[in-house]
Amino acid sequence: MKKIVQCVPNFSEGIRKNIIEKIVEPLKNKEGFKLVSYESDQDYNRTVVTIIGDPESMILPLVNFFEQALIHIDMNHQKGQHPRMGAVDVVPFIPIENMTKEECIEIAKKLSAQISKKFSIPIFLYAQAATQKNRVLLPSIRKGEFEGMEEKLKNEIWKPDFGTSNIHKTFGVTAVGVRDPLIAYNIDLDTDDIEVAKKLAKTIRKSSGGFQYVQAGPAYLKDRGHVQVTMNILDYKKNPIYRIYETIKMESLRYDVKVTSSEIVGLCPYNAIYSSLKYYFSSNFLNIPKNLSFNDIIEQAKKYLNLRDFEKNKIIEYHFKEKL
Amino acid sequence: MKKIVQCVPNFSEGIRKNIIEKIVEPLKNKEGFKLVSYESDQDYNRTVVTIIGDPESMILPLVNFFEQALIHIDMNHQKGQHPRMGAVDVVPFIPIENMTKEECIEIAKKLSAQISKKFSIPIFLYAQAATQKNRVLLPSIRKGEFEGMEEKLKNEIWKPDFGTSNIHKTFGVTAVGVRDPLIAYNIDLDTDDIEVAKKLAKTIRKSSGGFQYVQAGPAYLKDRGHVQVTMNILDYKKNPIYRIYETIKMESLRYDVKVTSSEIVGLCPYNAIYSSLKYYFSSNFLNIPKNLSFNDIIEQAKKYLNLRDFEKNKIIEYHFKEKL
Repeated sequence: MKKIVQCVPNFSEGIRKNIIEKIVEPLKNKEGFKLVSYESDQDYNRTVVTIIGDPESMILPLVNFFEQALIHIDMNHQKGQHPRMGAVDVVPFIPIENMTKEECIEIAKKLSAQISKKFSIPIFLYAQAATQKNRVLLPSIRKGEFEGMEEKLKNEIWKPDFGTSNIHKTFGVTAVGVRDPLIAYNIDLDTDDIEVAKKLAKTIRKSSGGFQYVQAGPAYLKDRGHVQVTMNILDYKKNPIYRIYETIKMESLRYDVKVTSSEIVGLCPYNAIYSSLKYYFSSNFLNIPKNLSFNDIIEQAKKYLNLRDFEKNKIIEYHFKEKL
Repeated sequence: MKKIVQCVPNFSEGIRKNIIEKIVEPLKNKEGFKLVSYESDQDYNRTVVTIIGDPESMILPLVNFFEQALIHIDMNHQKGQHPRMGAVDVVPFIPIENMTKEECIEIAKKLSAQISKKFSIPIFLYAQAATQKNRVLLPSIRKGEFEGMEEKLKNEIWKPDFGTSNIHKTFGVTAVGVRDPLIAYNIDLDTDDIEVAKKLAKTIRKSSGGFQYVQAGPAYLKDRGHVQVTMNILDYKKNPIYRIYETIKMESLRYDVKVTSSEIVGLCPYNAIYSSLKYYFSSNFLNIPKNLSFNDIIEQAKKYLNLRDFEKNKIIEYHFKEKL
């Protein structure tokens, strides 16, 4: 059975288009995996790359990708709104199919070993790959950012997992890790009142007593002229999309506000949608077919979850399955 | 402003009616507080008493209540299904009006000091009154039960907060503490399939990823011939009743099961009902009056939450407010 991982490297350049192309180049048109997207944010001065496929096939191209970032980014001159500590800032691996967490960690280590050796870049293992408690959360590793990292590495407790305690003078340091897939999900409201979105976010998010695996907040969409509840779902099996969507619909009634649509940002697993559709089929006394094709999934998700801008390429499996 | 606390002493006799009456006697018809109820469970061999009112007025009657339990219960012969460590097993104080948590802790200490001195009973402060981390949760104090307590007290970390490390040979030991009000709430389903109740409980309870302040499980009601989702709501402000009720309604659709009614076991704060009614009024575009009388609250709660067996005396405030 084919092993499939998703890898989402973030690098610290989001403005200079020619440089971005050069850095991403080693990941294009490779055997064994697919470059799904690379999206740059100018304010953040940062680009998020998504590749999906066979993990072993990714290693060498990722090393070459690091090399391009090393050549073209000097962190001493890099400025942006997003906190960062390296030219390639963070490389999370996400197990998708026929991969255990442990196998993902092995891949993360293999990549880290090659990079630290070849380019003298210090590397921290983070999230599920972390070797120490203080390295589980990325922000605690990244604290101090590039500028504070030379000093930070002198502290024994911040000895990198790979490489020496000497920061790379132009590249900085990188975190490589393993995490579960998360879903970036937003629910649109037909109001421009941010307070309503704030109150609704509080009803569902963990930090205010809501669902355990939901991080949520309010957002105003300037272009569209309405607010939304914007969230990360950290475990869609325990906190399925439909439950959150229906809870927001229920809660919004009290403000005389309507849920007009919802959206998934980035990729999401087929099963995250399928399992929510199962709820809607069964509550309408319908049997759901054992497999829905990608086209069916899109159509039904638009119907029941009012998903907007939802296309096949948002489904992770679409990028490596022959058909569904 | 009148200070109001609720106190819910549990004692280890639930079978012998004449003994139960003798133990409860000192709490009857006293100035300053009201004996709201005492409910015995024969299988548990345990009685739960509820008193509400002025905290200072409760102290002497509670000392006398302890004395009666001491006289009439010998823990060497007491058997029942409920774990226990003393003739009076646990005495929680719950701040209701014009009382801070700190003031409640003072009352708990005052009572503990008198009892340990007068009757040589070792006392542990627990929950919000706990002086050590391992004393926050009652089960960890109670572990070993009456029979294991003599040995347990020899361990320095289980030195009682009041009294000596010598267990009282017939009474055992007691825990006195302070906790927030909790609501025991159940939602009835028109099915006898316990699996459905189990699945629904999982959608709302913290331990399965649901709401932070909900502990829930399935129960089958033999007499009534249907199942229910039975729960404790530990913080009704953060996890309001209506939200849980509506979530269960929404989730039950997928099993083709109906929510037929719900019930509150024991007492609940006026505001727990009022704040949920606010949701239903506003989602029906109605203004809710600033105060609803006890009668109004009952009527509306029956209408919107399908509360069964809900009477005025289930509302805490009914027991000390002139009228509402």
